[in-house]
Amino acid sequence: MQPSTGWALHTDKYQITMMYAHWKNGSHRERKTFDLYFRKLPFGNGFAVFAGLERAIQYLTSLRFTEEDIRYLAEQEERYDPRFLDLLREFRFTGDVYAMREGRLVFPNEPLLRIEGDVMELQLVETALLNFIGYQTLIATKAARIKTIAPDDTLMEFGTRRAQEAEAAVWGARAAYLAGFHATSNLRAGERFGIPTKGTHSHAWVQDFDSELESFRAFADAFPDQSVLLVDTYDTLKSGVPHAIQVGLELRDKGHKLAGIRLDSGDLAYLSKEARNMLDDAGLTDTAIVASSDLDENTILNLKSQGARIDAWGVGTKLITAYDQPALGAVYKLVAREQNGEWIPSIKISSNPEKVTTPGVKTVYRIIDRDSEKARGDLIVKEGQTVDEDQPLTLFHPVHTYRKKKVRHFRAVNLLEPVLQKGKVVSDIPDLEQLRALHAEERSHFWEEYLRLLNPEEYPVDLSPELWETKQQLVRKIYQTIREENGK
Amino acid sequence: MQPSTGWALHTDKYQITMMYAHWKNGSHRERKTFDLYFRKLPFGNGFAVFAGLERAIQYLTSLRFTEEDIRYLAEQEERYDPRFLDLLREFRFTGDVYAMREGRLVFPNEPLLRIEGDVMELQLVETALLNFIGYQTLIATKAARIKTIAPDDTLMEFGTRRAQEAEAAVWGARAAYLAGFHATSNLRAGERFGIPTKGTHSHAWVQDFDSELESFRAFADAFPDQSVLLVDTYDTLKSGVPHAIQVGLELRDKGHKLAGIRLDSGDLAYLSKEARNMLDDAGLTDTAIVASSDLDENTILNLKSQGARIDAWGVGTKLITAYDQPALGAVYKLVAREQNGEWIPSIKISSNPEKVTTPGVKTVYRIIDRDSEKARGDLIVKEGQTVDEDQPLTLFHPVHTYRKKKVRHFRAVNLLEPVLQKGKVVSDIPDLEQLRALHAEERSHFWEEYLRLLNPEEYPVDLSPELWETKQQLVRKIYQTIREENGK
Repeated sequence: MQPSTGWALHTDKYQITMMYAHWKNGSHRERKTFDLYFRKLPFGNGFAVFAGLERAIQYLTSLRFTEEDIRYLAEQEERYDPRFLDLLREFRFTGDVYAMREGRLVFPNEPLLRIEGDVMELQLVETALLNFIGYQTLIATKAARIKTIAPDDTLMEFGTRRAQEAEAAVWGARAAYLAGFHATSNLRAGERFGIPTKGTHSHAWVQDFDSELESFRAFADAFPDQSVLLVDTYDTLKSGVPHAIQVGLELRDKGHKLAGIRLDSGDLAYLSKEARNMLDDAGLTDTAIVASSDLDENTILNLKSQGARIDAWGVGTKLITAYDQPALGAVYKLVAREQNGEWIPSIKISSNPEKVTTPGVKTVYRIIDRDSEKARGDLIVKEGQTVDEDQPLTLFHPVHTYRKKKVRHFRAVNLLEPVLQKGKVVSDIPDLEQLRALHAEERSHFWEEYLRLLNPEEYPVDLSPELWETKQQLVRKIYQTIREENGK
Repeated sequence: MQPSTGWALHTDKYQITMMYAHWKNGSHRERKTFDLYFRKLPFGNGFAVFAGLERAIQYLTSLRFTEEDIRYLAEQEERYDPRFLDLLREFRFTGDVYAMREGRLVFPNEPLLRIEGDVMELQLVETALLNFIGYQTLIATKAARIKTIAPDDTLMEFGTRRAQEAEAAVWGARAAYLAGFHATSNLRAGERFGIPTKGTHSHAWVQDFDSELESFRAFADAFPDQSVLLVDTYDTLKSGVPHAIQVGLELRDKGHKLAGIRLDSGDLAYLSKEARNMLDDAGLTDTAIVASSDLDENTILNLKSQGARIDAWGVGTKLITAYDQPALGAVYKLVAREQNGEWIPSIKISSNPEKVTTPGVKTVYRIIDRDSEKARGDLIVKEGQTVDEDQPLTLFHPVHTYRKKKVRHFRAVNLLEPVLQKGKVVSDIPDLEQLRALHAEERSHFWEEYLRLLNPEEYPVDLSPELWETKQQLVRKIYQTIREENGK
């Protein structure tokens, strides 16, 4: 579960191949800068929630090739030179990392993480960084959508059995908690991160007894104040709820309380309203109703619009797999190469204009209105360039440049903070509770138009004029080279 | 990566809760049988490919609670009795497991794995078994669909960066290889399972040089016979392919060979045909064309129908996440309880008739026609019941019982093989190469109508008359009890 010495091979073979080709070429110690970002928001959401940095830091700071790894590489058909393998034996990550804090609301095409180092190390780590950050950011974003719809309800992550293998369950539970969930069923996530864990019983518990009533009584005996009874094994309203009420009354007579009932199938809107009435009629007004059953933000929204009486939601498959879009599609692109001590911007062209990279070593400022305390937009600038808060600032759309707005009386927050310098951690890593609080606070800085689930407004992420001009120049230069070569 | 002593908490809290309530109730040593199965085929496919058993066996045979786990549980609000925690300290899995072989073509509502043991251990392992088997079966099935469309091409799994965390990448690569893929980019999967690994270079390699030509030359220097050059960094047909050809001719002059070029964006049908012509015209007829770029069985099918000249496919995101359906939805249901040395069938009712379980300790026979060697259907029977190969056999649909067919001259293969007895491995575990061969052979036993991608025929999975009758009786009995209670 912890990044161990075996993580160096959590990578694509082409990273090793490129490291080797650089070494053969003598260019393996050249310094580069890569940006990690995504191009398109998932789920039609108006923002994403950055997550996965803690995992990435653990990985980078503990990265080693074991002798087993080296032996494996030595057997490959590529027949790597033994001197190259010796270099891997000594490998340590020694680069610099600048990154957003976890929990930040983030947007397409802005660097979430900028990494500087020699090309060998930057290639090796690409795959793992995309894997860790892509998944947690995806799940945190999905969880944030559910939080948007049910801000005052109890939200529980119940997806482990349907997660894509074991680690997804753990890190997905973490991402969901970061974005405002209250608990998980996953005990490893509870043990590791201190996330509150919840869970009651399954249908098998009920089937394990000769009658449903007997099964409820036995469960309530074990947990006289914490029982949430699953009421749909045989028939929710004719069997499950009446038996739960009977046990709830018995508990009350003994000075205890039935904590809740759980609905796991059928028409949750109708069943929850009927069950609420039945519980209330019996005087069990503080017995909660918990629902589970293929839930996501859309089903919850619909159930709420139908007046469902549900206090707590157990969300499984649709959250832990990000069912409607199970990959973020994050990318990691070379943006600058060091030559004679200077950073030379680098670009990748594509027949798809949205895939053209933004060259250069950059940082991201968030422009926050001092009156409303709301974010007006993000501005990507060349690293080292500052934003003068005393001058009016013109933001313009990087593709549709006629779309501009002038901003005054703002503060500019540099979002990319130093995390690692020469491979060593240089900033305090906030714990999960702090990050969760930060995320909740962060949401308050955004207008509702960016937060809503359906058809949110596009939040502005703009380039500084200098950066925009550099990008245009490089594109022109490359096409000129291609034309010249084809004119030959 | 290996199941370690820390895996006991890879479970939902409610499993511990139920174990505890059973212990309090004195019923924790009662023996039960659970079935693991799925209800609906993923992707509209006609079959699934069973996978994940090796992982499940490793987990079951190494399952322990560490002192750290116990400490964590002791702190929980449920305040488990210390004597219960002592029991966990000694916990070993001691049950019996019967399962399909990995690589088998499997179908809805038939037990893929049957597990017998005491209720404590059977509850604990539910979550992990569903997690491991659900994911690998899902990915193997997705990979099998791609194999169906491109049976003679080279298929490479390239999804690690987009996988849902680290373990999904490794086990997904294994599942894809089992179902007929040829290689993976994931080096951990290569190291662990001996799967061939492949990989060349990315756009960053090209950007790292002052010119594309220079970058191709440097790469070819490092791998004179294994270079696959990525040709779309600037302009595929005007820059990438001409430069690759130039380097290919230079390699030929030195007695080497350009292995291939890779197309990663744009119109792959058009580009591959043009690139093929350009390569052929230059005499590089044995330089292969590799494609990658959000591929799945549908894009590959369409590219083939357009006459694309692609020899090898690198499939990433859509395979490793099972993008169009990222969860199998496997379930694990109590089917029998031991009382006085006898197995008593148990059932779970649902308002959704497809969710009613099939009670009893059962096994599955595959009925194979002796003339055609094709499977005619699967038959679920009570454990111990044999199928007489000398008598005609009537198969009937378990829901639409008027749908019958009579089968003669067949052999009946029991698909559930003993794997663990009292927690110990009792059968040879085939290695991955053997399983992959078994899977390929297994496909040959199915008519094309079950294998096709779109609108496959429904393969018959039928119940024996005895089992069908038991199920009806139990349903009737439960509804009678509910009526009586509500009549009171």
